[in-house]
Amino acid sequence: MGVITFLSDYGTVDEFVGVVHAVIARLAAGTQVIDLTHGIQRHDVRSGALVLRDTLPFAPAGVHLAVVDPEVGARRRAVALRCEDEDRVLVGPDNGLLAPAADRFGGVVEAVEISQSPWRLEPVSATFHGRDLFAPVAARLAAGEAFAGAGEPFDPAELVALELPAARLEDRALVVHALTTDRFGNVLLDGSVEQLGRLAHLGDTVEVRSGATTRTARYARTFAEVGEGELLVYEDARRNLALAVNRGSAADELALERDAELRLSRAEG
Amino acid sequence: MGVITFLSDYGTVDEFVGVVHAVIARLAAGTQVIDLTHGIQRHDVRSGALVLRDTLPFAPAGVHLAVVDPEVGARRRAVALRCEDEDRVLVGPDNGLLAPAADRFGGVVEAVEISQSPWRLEPVSATFHGRDLFAPVAARLAAGEAFAGAGEPFDPAELVALELPAARLEDRALVVHALTTDRFGNVLLDGSVEQLGRLAHLGDTVEVRSGATTRTARYARTFAEVGEGELLVYEDARRNLALAVNRGSAADELALERDAELRLSRAEG
Amino acid sequence: MGVITFLSDYGTVDEFVGVVHAVIARLAAGTQVIDLTHGIQRHDVRSGALVLRDTLPFAPAGVHLAVVDPEVGARRRAVALRCEDEDRVLVGPDNGLLAPAADRFGGVVEAVEISQSPWRLEPVSATFHGRDLFAPVAARLAAGEAFAGAGEPFDPAELVALELPAARLEDRALVVHALTTDRFGNVLLDGSVEQLGRLAHLGDTVEVRSGATTRTARYARTFAEVGEGELLVYEDARRNLALAVNRGSAADELALERDAELRLSRAEG
Repeated sequence: MGVITFLSDYGTVDEFVGVVHAVIARLAAGTQVIDLTHGIQRHDVRSGALVLRDTLPFAPAGVHLAVVDPEVGARRRAVALRCEDEDRVLVGPDNGLLAPAADRFGGVVEAVEISQSPWRLEPVSATFHGRDLFAPVAARLAAGEAFAGAGEPFDPAELVALELPAARLEDRALVVHALTTDRFGNVLLDGSVEQLGRLAHLGDTVEVRSGATTRTARYARTFAEVGEGELLVYEDARRNLALAVNRGSAADELALERDAELRLSRAEG
Repeated sequence: MGVITFLSDYGTVDEFVGVVHAVIARLAAGTQVIDLTHGIQRHDVRSGALVLRDTLPFAPAGVHLAVVDPEVGARRRAVALRCEDEDRVLVGPDNGLLAPAADRFGGVVEAVEISQSPWRLEPVSATFHGRDLFAPVAARLAAGEAFAGAGEPFDPAELVALELPAARLEDRALVVHALTTDRFGNVLLDGSVEQLGRLAHLGDTVEVRSGATTRTARYARTFAEVGEGELLVYEDARRNLALAVNRGSAADELALERDAELRLSRAEG
Repeated sequence: MGVITFLSDYGTVDEFVGVVHAVIARLAAGTQVIDLTHGIQRHDVRSGALVLRDTLPFAPAGVHLAVVDPEVGARRRAVALRCEDEDRVLVGPDNGLLAPAADRFGGVVEAVEISQSPWRLEPVSATFHGRDLFAPVAARLAAGEAFAGAGEPFDPAELVALELPAARLEDRALVVHALTTDRFGNVLLDGSVEQLGRLAHLGDTVEVRSGATTRTARYARTFAEVGEGELLVYEDARRNLALAVNRGSAADELALERDAELRLSRAEG
């Protein structure tokens, strides 16, 4: 049987996640469901999209269900997307949540709109499309039904993109942006260690300029390499460049808005 | 192999849920366990009962384990119940938790008391019957052992009922009651949209009388149809009539006790 | 296919647990993973070790993955251990976390260091060995690969022990120690009911001496046997001797440091 991964902002206090599992078990007995996380902050499409993009490469190819859906019941599309690589299938709302993962897997080669899917559970509720729409479609696809049977085809070029700033090298600086903050106050950046590696080596001191303020950070591999309360720039476990304060909160200390621009450069000396 | 659904108030911080899974895997290898939720508020039998009733129809027929058990170790019965519809089996304490679900599935046709079940894990602890009693019985039944082997038969008429008020139509009003409150402050009512539909249509303004106070609410399909801070009456995702305040707490604003009576009627206009 | 149990301090808000499941599904399709708990307090190796020891006997024999790993990225060993009983295999950091469970299953008969395991996921991150090292090793072993293939053999005598005080009978007292505290404020002790049973019977009043302070507690089976706010000593669900206050916190009331010594004796009457 197939494998479904499942990511959402449903939390684990209520029964939402359990009911989605129930629907899948009812429609596709024997399917394995892997909960990636349900702790995405409520309605935070961007964080969900980045976690999805960064975790799916560790999962087996299959059907990848994701629901962070602030516009449920409004006019956003509900979609199933087939990707170039490994025929991975993404199921969820068309609000940018699936876009970075689709890019990671070679882009979308086939897209269907599923709001009126013949596989939906009637009556479709106004607020719980995870149960009534996305889960049944994911289940049927995992059970081997034909992708095209899920709904109406449309041009993948019409998919909603996730707006993300883009890191760039400029003069002797790497210009990066604050993408999201995790619950420890670590700030995820859009740059990569490959980019930073052109300017600095592990162990170097890096200047972090934000607006008129400049701080110094250690370019480190682990938190333990800097003292308590010190700033570091490092590659996090999801392989993103990030800023942290050892035993503190970089988000609080730097007071960064989402998409705030930062300039990283090697400190002279 | 069989499927077991599992609902409890154990929470997910401790190992209680994990140990129940372990016991089931040990006694009935290959059984799939679907966690409906473990976030029922501690000892809130009624909320557990209503969530169980409203989620099981989405799950495949099988063994349905539920444990919200404030009287564990005292004299309440521990039971397994076979329902009329689909031979669904409910396992848990006899304190009303299983009753609404049993009703939903056509009532109980066979009941056994399992406190001294030959399948129990000895020594049975004073406080963790989920592990020592309910899980082993659920596991053996899911593995296909005969229902009657789980314990001593008794008359289903002796089962503890869940005391619930009952909505009624009266004059030009629907008299409903506050059954439970969820963590967002939404108040679950005992009326149905079918009942309310005899008095009002979607979009109508509804008078909500509670004691000497009367408020108005919009009869809406989604929160987005009313302004911030406004009251609405709607069908929630579990298909119950409910009261909410958009981005607020109806429970706080209406200050309703459990079982408080409310009169809903269409506002003249 | 095999069964893997999984315990950690990862919590359930982030995607760490989900990614470990994903890695296992990718490397060993069809393996069942049982989450024992991920609510161990961050970096609390001792609590993790005791929960692991006390829950594994309820789980089927298999591969037992456990990660509470404050020294990840530093010099601690990463290990796989084969136990005498049932060929149970423990996988995790060598910091004492696995030691009490290994003892419970007859001790370690074969040990391998897995930091450079041929099964690891490259590049191994500095902070997430659960994903890059422990999960792949657990997956391959669950899939039936040879234990010796996981890494480099070493002498089990070199394993890090978990330092635990030891309860002892002395005069007419049982000298016990505060091992850990759960989230309800119940204090886990190192004595057993067998030991206490030599001094007192259920229902007896027991003197609890801590430093210069002496309190009395009821030796009870359940919380319901004592009044609200009263102290009791009892066997908890994991079969450890513990101290609790009915509807209160024994940890707060007794203000015990970890490893604090207590003398239990039967009150003269």
